[in-house]
Amino acid sequence: MNKLKLICPLITPLDNTNEPSREFYELLISDLAEMGVTSIFPLGSTGLFSLLTMEKKRKFLKIVAEESENLEIFVGIGSQNTDESIEFAKYASDLGFVNMVLQPTYYIRPEQPWIIRHFSEVMANVEANFIVYNIPQLTGVTIEPETVKTIIENSSGRIKGIKESSGDLRYFNNIMFEFGSKLPVYQGQDDLLLQSLVVGAEGGVCGSTNISSIAKNVIDSFSDRNIKQARESQKNLNFVFRLLTSYPFPSVYYYLFYKKHNIKGKLPLPITTMERIPDSFVTNSIDSIKRLENKSP
Amino acid sequence: MNKLKLICPLITPLDNTNEPSREFYELLISDLAEMGVTSIFPLGSTGLFSLLTMEKKRKFLKIVAEESENLEIFVGIGSQNTDESIEFAKYASDLGFVNMVLQPTYYIRPEQPWIIRHFSEVMANVEANFIVYNIPQLTGVTIEPETVKTIIENSSGRIKGIKESSGDLRYFNNIMFEFGSKLPVYQGQDDLLLQSLVVGAEGGVCGSTNISSIAKNVIDSFSDRNIKQARESQKNLNFVFRLLTSYPFPSVYYYLFYKKHNIKGKLPLPITTMERIPDSFVTNSIDSIKRLENKSP
Amino acid sequence: MNKLKLICPLITPLDNTNEPSREFYELLISDLAEMGVTSIFPLGSTGLFSLLTMEKKRKFLKIVAEESENLEIFVGIGSQNTDESIEFAKYASDLGFVNMVLQPTYYIRPEQPWIIRHFSEVMANVEANFIVYNIPQLTGVTIEPETVKTIIENSSGRIKGIKESSGDLRYFNNIMFEFGSKLPVYQGQDDLLLQSLVVGAEGGVCGSTNISSIAKNVIDSFSDRNIKQARESQKNLNFVFRLLTSYPFPSVYYYLFYKKHNIKGKLPLPITTMERIPDSFVTNSIDSIKRLENKSP
Amino acid sequence: MNKLKLICPLITPLDNTNEPSREFYELLISDLAEMGVTSIFPLGSTGLFSLLTMEKKRKFLKIVAEESENLEIFVGIGSQNTDESIEFAKYASDLGFVNMVLQPTYYIRPEQPWIIRHFSEVMANVEANFIVYNIPQLTGVTIEPETVKTIIENSSGRIKGIKESSGDLRYFNNIMFEFGSKLPVYQGQDDLLLQSLVVGAEGGVCGSTNISSIAKNVIDSFSDRNIKQARESQKNLNFVFRLLTSYPFPSVYYYLFYKKHNIKGKLPLPITTMERIPDSFVTNSIDSIKRLENKSP
Repeated sequence: MNKLKLICPLITPLDNTNEPSREFYELLISDLAEMGVTSIFPLGSTGLFSLLTMEKKRKFLKIVAEESENLEIFVGIGSQNTDESIEFAKYASDLGFVNMVLQPTYYIRPEQPWIIRHFSEVMANVEANFIVYNIPQLTGVTIEPETVKTIIENSSGRIKGIKESSGDLRYFNNIMFEFGSKLPVYQGQDDLLLQSLVVGAEGGVCGSTNISSIAKNVIDSFSDRNIKQARESQKNLNFVFRLLTSYPFPSVYYYLFYKKHNIKGKLPLPITTMERIPDSFVTNSIDSIKRLENKSP
Repeated sequence: MNKLKLICPLITPLDNTNEPSREFYELLISDLAEMGVTSIFPLGSTGLFSLLTMEKKRKFLKIVAEESENLEIFVGIGSQNTDESIEFAKYASDLGFVNMVLQPTYYIRPEQPWIIRHFSEVMANVEANFIVYNIPQLTGVTIEPETVKTIIENSSGRIKGIKESSGDLRYFNNIMFEFGSKLPVYQGQDDLLLQSLVVGAEGGVCGSTNISSIAKNVIDSFSDRNIKQARESQKNLNFVFRLLTSYPFPSVYYYLFYKKHNIKGKLPLPITTMERIPDSFVTNSIDSIKRLENKSP
Repeated sequence: MNKLKLICPLITPLDNTNEPSREFYELLISDLAEMGVTSIFPLGSTGLFSLLTMEKKRKFLKIVAEESENLEIFVGIGSQNTDESIEFAKYASDLGFVNMVLQPTYYIRPEQPWIIRHFSEVMANVEANFIVYNIPQLTGVTIEPETVKTIIENSSGRIKGIKESSGDLRYFNNIMFEFGSKLPVYQGQDDLLLQSLVVGAEGGVCGSTNISSIAKNVIDSFSDRNIKQARESQKNLNFVFRLLTSYPFPSVYYYLFYKKHNIKGKLPLPITTMERIPDSFVTNSIDSIKRLENKSP
Repeated sequence: MNKLKLICPLITPLDNTNEPSREFYELLISDLAEMGVTSIFPLGSTGLFSLLTMEKKRKFLKIVAEESENLEIFVGIGSQNTDESIEFAKYASDLGFVNMVLQPTYYIRPEQPWIIRHFSEVMANVEANFIVYNIPQLTGVTIEPETVKTIIENSSGRIKGIKESSGDLRYFNNIMFEFGSKLPVYQGQDDLLLQSLVVGAEGGVCGSTNISSIAKNVIDSFSDRNIKQARESQKNLNFVFRLLTSYPFPSVYYYLFYKKHNIKGKLPLPITTMERIPDSFVTNSIDSIKRLENKSP
C-alpha cells in the first residue's frame, strides 16, 4: 500500500471587495500545515472557478504560486470550453505548475468523444501532468470507463490519477477495479472516504479539510489498519459533512472559514446564501467540529 | 390574439479557421428572409455561446450588428457567472442592441435566490429589455414560477417575455397560465410548438428555422384557425426535429446548414460529432425536409 | 373528427367496513349521468385495484355489472403478474364485459418482450377487446412504440385503443403520430387534455370526472372549434387538477366524493392520507370547483 | 464484532409445468450447505414473489418448511397491499416460521405514513419478528430514516434488522450510522458487500450465493481482518455480479442454476428472458465462476 494522500480542494477566499485575498490565503494554508495536509487543489469546484472571471483566476493562482512553499499543488484548469482550459493551463504552466486537474466541458452536454478530444487538445498544448476529474452532478456527464481508458492511452503517461466525485460508489468501484492497479484513484466525497480506501483508493480530495482535520483521522486510522477507529472517524466526518452540506454547496465551507478566523470575506456573484445562513448555525457548527476533533478518533 | 412570433435561435457559423464567418452569416439570414422569419436570437444554446471565447462572441455579435437590417434581434447574454454576463451585455448594449435573453448561471447549480440576484445585478448594470430563459437540461436548474414572479417585479417593466425550453409541457402550462396574460411566452422546443400555441403561447423559438421553414407552417395554420392543417404541419415538424436530434445537439443543425450551402464550416472544440455523421444521413435529411416543405402543409 | 370520448376512471367507493358499496357506486354513476359522461373505467389506478384483494375486486365488478345500464365499460384487469390478470379477465368476461384495459406487470420491472408476452398470454386466454395502458410512473416501465406495434400486430384486431397516462407529451406525440390514424388514443392526465386533443386524441380518461364536470367543457369547446373557450376551460381544469393532486394520489378524489355526498367512506390499507387532509381544504375545494363549474366555460 | 451473517435470497425454482419443485429446491439447499451458507430468505425479489399466485407461494413455502433442517429462515411476506401481506404472513406463521421480511407496498406509490401503517397492521395481526426491507428501485419509494425509527418504536422489539438494497451507499451509511448500534443492518447488493462491512454491516443478503460461494470469501476475509484479501474477493464477486446482471434481473440467477444442475426449470410469466440468453454466455459464465472460486481468495 502506497502512502495515502489527503488533498484539500481549496476554497478561493475573497476579500471585502470581491478580490482574491493573499492574507486570507495565508490563513488557509497555515491551517492546512497545522493539520498535516500537504497537497492542495486550488480552483476546483469548491474553489468556485466557474464563478470567477479569467482575471480573478489568474490573480488567485499567482498568489498560490508565490505563497505555497512545500505544498504539492494540483491546479484546476476546468472550464466550459477547450479554448479557455488551454489558455488557463498555459498560464499555470508559465507560473511553474506541473500538475493539473481537468474535467469535461459543461452546459452543452459533452458526448464521450468530445471528452476525449477535450483532453487530447489540452494535453497537446500544455506540458504538464493531469488528473482526470469526474463530477457528473456539475458537468452533466459521467466519464465512461472506456473513455478514461482512451484518455490514458492518448496521454503518453501524463495522466497521473483519477479524482472521482460522483458520489456513486458503484461507478467508483468500476473505476477502481479497472484502473486502480495502474493509477492512484482519489475519492472526492468526504462521506465516502473510508469505503473508497477499503477497495484501494490512494486517498481523498476532501473539502472538509478547509475547516477541519477529521478526514485526516480516517486516513491515519485506516493506514494503521485500525478499522474500528477508522469507522468512528468516518462517522464523525459524516457529521461534519452533513453540516457542510446543510446549505447550498459550497457556501458553508466559506462561511465557516471566515467565521473561524473572524474575517470579512465574500462569495462571488450570484451566490446569496451567506446572507441566509443563521449565525447560530455557524457558531454551533464550529463548536461541534472542535468537540469532535478534540475527542477524536 | 396577438400576431404570433417565430424566432430563429441562430447557429453561429464558423469558417474553416474556426472564426465566425460574415459570409456564412449572410447566407443564413438570407435563408430566414426567404422563409419570412424576421426575429433572431444569436448566441443562445444552439449558437453554442458557451463554447466560444469572449472574443469570438464579440466578433460574431459585431457581424450581427452590421448585417441584420430589418430584423428584430434578441441577444443571448447567458454565461457561467454574473460578471461575464454583465460584461457581454454591456458590449451588446454599446453596439445598440436593446433586447437580451438571460438564463441562470450554471456548473455550480444555482439556488432560486441566486437566480434572482443574477437577474437583478445584470438589470442594474445594463439598460435593456430582457427575456427570461428557462432551460434546466443545460443549466441544471428550473426557474420556479415564484422566482419568475420576483424577477418580473424587480424589473421595472423590463422583462418582456419568457422563453421556455424545458420540454416539459406541465411546467410550460404553469408558466403560461400564471404569466401568459401579462407577458408573451415562447416555446423553445420545436416539437411542442402547436401544443404551446393552443394554450396561448405567442410563438416559438424554433431551431429548425436554421434549415427549414416548416415551423412557419404550424404558426400560419394555427393563426388561420386551421387546426387540422396545423396538426399535419406539426407532424412534419416533428419529423424534422427528429432528424435534427438524431445526433448530439446541436451538431446536425450546423451540418445540414453547411451542406445545404455546400460550404466548409466548423463547430467549436471539443465537438467532434461532425466527423461522425454519415454523409448519407445528411443528404437524405436535406432531401426529406425539402419534400415535406414542398408538399406542405 | 370522430366524436370525442370522455371516460371516467372510477374510484372504488368503500363503505365503513372497507367493503365495496353498491349504494355509493349508485351515487357515483348518477353524478356521471348528470354530467353526461357515459363511459367508465372501473378498477384502474384511481380505482386502487392493486390495494384490493381479488375477492373485493370481484365484488366491486359484480356491482358494476348489475348497476350500469347504458354505460360503456372498460374493465381494468391489470395486475402484478400475468396469471392474476388472466384470472380476473376471465371473471370479467363471464360477467359479460367485452372491453378491458391492460398495463404491464410491475414490481419486477418488465422488459419490452415481457410486456409483449403479457399481452399475448392474456389475449390468448380471454375473448375480449383491449386498451393498451401506459403508466410508467406506476409500473416502472414505458411501453415503447415498437412494443405497442407488436402488441397490435399480435392482436387480430382486438386492440381498440391506447390510454396514455405518462404525463410526458413528447411520448404521447410519438404514440399519437404513429398510431393515431388507426386507433383512438386517450389522454389519461386531465391537465394535458386540450394539448392532446389538438394533436388528434379522441378523448380523455379524466379522474376529475369523479367529482367535477369541467373536463367535459374542454371536450365540448374543442369539438365546437372554440379554442379560446377550450383554453379557459383547460385553465379551470388545471386548477381542479391541482386541488386533486395536493395530497397523495388518489386520496383527494375519494375524500371529495365522500364529502360531497356527506357519506362515510373509506380508502383501503395502507392509505392513511384521509385522516391528514384538513377538513377546510376539502370544503374549500368543493366550493371552488362548484364556482368554476357555474361560471363556466 | 458479532459473527457476520451471509443470507441467500433464494430463487424459486419451478419445474417444467411452472410449479415450485421440491427436487430442485433440495439441490439448491444442498449447494448452500456445501458453501456453508446457513441462512435463507425465500420469496423475496430474487424469488420473484410478485409473479407467483398466492397458491404457488403457499406451495413453495410448504416445501421450504418441510425440507430445511438446520437453516435459519427469513420469509418474504411483501406484497402489493397490506391485506395480502397479512394473509401470507399468517400462513407462514401457521407453518412455524418466526422471522419475516417486509417491504412497503408498491404500484400506488406509498407515502411514509402509509409505510408505517403497513408495518403496524402486519405486526398487529401476526406474531413474528420482522426485518425492514428497503428496495426503492422496485417499490418506488425509499423508507426514510425517520420512518424506520417510528417502525422500530412501534414494534415492541420485534424489528430484528434492516435489509438495505437500494444500491446507494450514502443512504446505507445514514441507516448504518443511525441504527447500526442497535440492530443488525444487512447489505442486499453483492457488489457493495465489503464497503458495507467496513462501516459496520453485520452481513449481506447476496443473490450470488444461489450459484457461487464467492460472497463467503469476502465475509471470511473481512472477519479475519485481511483487508487485502477481502478486496480481491470483492473484485471477484463484482465480476460474478456483473455476469448475473448482464441480462434482466433475475433471469440469469435461474438460468445458471438450472444449467449447473442440468435440469429443465422455468421462470414465471411474463418473463421471456431465458429464451434469449445465448447458451454460450451461460456455459462461459459457469466456467468463469468456477475458475474464480478455485483460485480464490
